[in-house]
Formats: sequence, C-alpha cells, structure tokens
Amino acid sequence: MATCCGGLKLDPAVREDARRRLLSVRGHVDAVLRMLENDRVYCVDVLKQVKAVDGALAKVGNLVLQSHLKQHVVTAHERGDEDQILGELMEILKYR
Amino acid sequence: MATCCGGLKLDPAVREDARRRLLSVRGHVDAVLRMLENDRVYCVDVLKQVKAVDGALAKVGNLVLQSHLKQHVVTAHERGDEDQILGELMEILKYR
Amino acid sequence: MATCCGGLKLDPAVREDARRRLLSVRGHVDAVLRMLENDRVYCVDVLKQVKAVDGALAKVGNLVLQSHLKQHVVTAHERGDEDQILGELMEILKYR
Amino acid sequence: MATCCGGLKLDPAVREDARRRLLSVRGHVDAVLRMLENDRVYCVDVLKQVKAVDGALAKVGNLVLQSHLKQHVVTAHERGDEDQILGELMEILKYR
Repeated sequence: MATCCGGLKLDPAVREDARRRLLSVRGHVDAVLRMLENDRVYCVDVLKQVKAVDGALAKVGNLVLQSHLKQHVVTAHERGDEDQILGELMEILKYR
Repeated sequence: MATCCGGLKLDPAVREDARRRLLSVRGHVDAVLRMLENDRVYCVDVLKQVKAVDGALAKVGNLVLQSHLKQHVVTAHERGDEDQILGELMEILKYR
Repeated sequence: MATCCGGLKLDPAVREDARRRLLSVRGHVDAVLRMLENDRVYCVDVLKQVKAVDGALAKVGNLVLQSHLKQHVVTAHERGDEDQILGELMEILKYR
Repeated sequence: MATCCGGLKLDPAVREDARRRLLSVRGHVDAVLRMLENDRVYCVDVLKQVKAVDGALAKVGNLVLQSHLKQHVVTAHERGDEDQILGELMEILKYR
C-alpha cells in the first residue's frame, strides 16, 4: 500500500511538509487525550479541539492532494494512466 | 478551557470510549507518519490514510456530540443556560 | 411527512425566512439550468455556481436547525420526548 | 462567466445529464417550498428534505467535476494551462 506500482511518488518537499504538519496533529491529539483524562472535562471543549484537529488534518490532505494534482494528474494523459489516476481521485474526493 | 464553569461535564463512559478511540486515531496518525518517511510513498496512499484517520476522528466527535446533546442540551431550558448552550452548539456545528 | 405527530412545528418567522431564502436558491438553480443550455459552458463555471447554491442551501438548513434546537431540543427533557428528538437529530447531523 | 476564454467546455452528454438532474433538484426545492407554506410543518421534516436536496446537488457537482478532471485536467500539462487549471480546481475543492 505504501508505494505505488507505477513509480509515482509524493514530492519530497511536500512529503516533509506533510510530515511536520502531521507531527503537530499528533501533538494536538495527545493534548485531547490528556483533556479526556480529566473527569471534569466539558463536552464542548473536547468538541472544539476535535474540530481543530480535524481542520489541521484536512490541511495535510489538501497539501498532498494539491501536490498529486500538480505532479501526477495534469500529466496523466501523457503518461497514459489516466483511467487509474481518475478512478483513484474520484474515490478520494467522494464525501470529502 | 478543559473544565466548564457551569459544572457540566462529559459522561465518564463516553469519555473513556472517546479516549480509547482517540488512542487508536493516534496510532493511525503514527502509521501515516511512518509512511511519510518512505521516499517512495505514493500521494494517493497517503490521501486514503488521511481520509481514514479523518473518519475515525469524526466518530469521536459524533460520540461526544451525541452525549452532549443527551446530557446537557435537552435539559438546557430547565437549567436556564440555553442561550450559552445554543451559542456553543451552533459554533461547533458550523461547517461541520 | 410534512407535519409532526407531536404537534411540534417550525417557528413562523423562521419558516418565512427559510421560504424566502429557498426561493432565492430556486432562482439560483434556474440560473445554473440556463448556463447548462449553453453548449460552450465551462465545467468550472458550473462547479462554482453549484457550490454557491450549496452554500445558500446550507444556510437554510442551519437556520431551521438553529430554530429546532432552540424551540424543541433544549426543552425535550421537560416534554419527555428526548429519545425521539435525539434520534432524529443525530440522523440529520450524520455526514453533514 | 458562462463560457471559458480557453475554449474548454463541458462535455455535451454530461451537460445534458447535469441539466436533467438539476431539473429534478429544482422540483425537489419546489416541494420544500410547498412544505414551508404549511404552518404546521415540523423542523425535522424540512431538514431531512434540505439534506436530500443537498445530496442531489452534490451528485450534479461530482458529475461535472469528474468530467472536468477527465476532459481537461489530465491533459492540462500537454495544453500548457496547468497553472490556471490547478488554481481553479483547488478553489473548488476547498471546503467541499
């Protein structure tokens, strides 16, 4: 699952940016886990933090998506793998 | 931020369930971080995992939301804090 | 489907506001329909308009939801119909 | 707004399909408008219909998006307009 058959790969700079952002997401998840150890924690405070984590995660997704579109999708017809590229892409964009 | 002025707090069983699910979300985030260390990782594989993490995180949010509605929102008029409860709630539901 | 067994009903002022906004949504849908009669219409122009219609429709939904929370949800425990109210609400909020 | 400078246009079959689906969306909007004329209408019944309209509208958007990706995005590098194509696309996909 982690590497693609066709040799297409995530741009190194984007990969590093995504990794750093995801580390920050993990830190945020840890903070919510600590909140949940407090038996007086209020639902809405948890919900706000979950929403914030979700926003940060969505940014990681958008970053990788943008890179994929730029590096691989706009050149798919030239490479001849457009059917696979489009199928994968619609699967990801569904219910986004 | 972690405790509420009004003494309302997250139901203990839900808090524990949310904590366990969020631990699993963190494990999933760690797995994506490991994917991102592989310089041959493919964008779409990352995007699929980010989407899966997002789905798991949304379940945590729904769990806490459902508990909040049941424990605190349906009784807000009786308690007399409905304005605060409604304000908070619409803030969370916006752009969900 | 159009009226509720329990006698709960949409607040008249909100109903009128929702109706006016939905008339505007319909006008916007008509405009997109006219765009689609033009055989030179560009995908992205259609997508932008569909997105705008979606935003206007979401506002109608938020308006009615806010009214429902205020008029019926915060009083559900007093009325004793909280199970039905909560079941309906989670159904609506899912995948929102 | 309705036609694109670059000569790119929505595929005729997709355009016709989108038009037919959007006519059905309009019919659905009209039905909700009639619901809103009933002074006993229940909030949740309106919300369910608004959600259904939203789902139908999202299908129109997905249809046009899929066609755009297939007809115009995968060939953007060949045409040399990838910067414009990518800018437009990310704008549409944001907050989708």
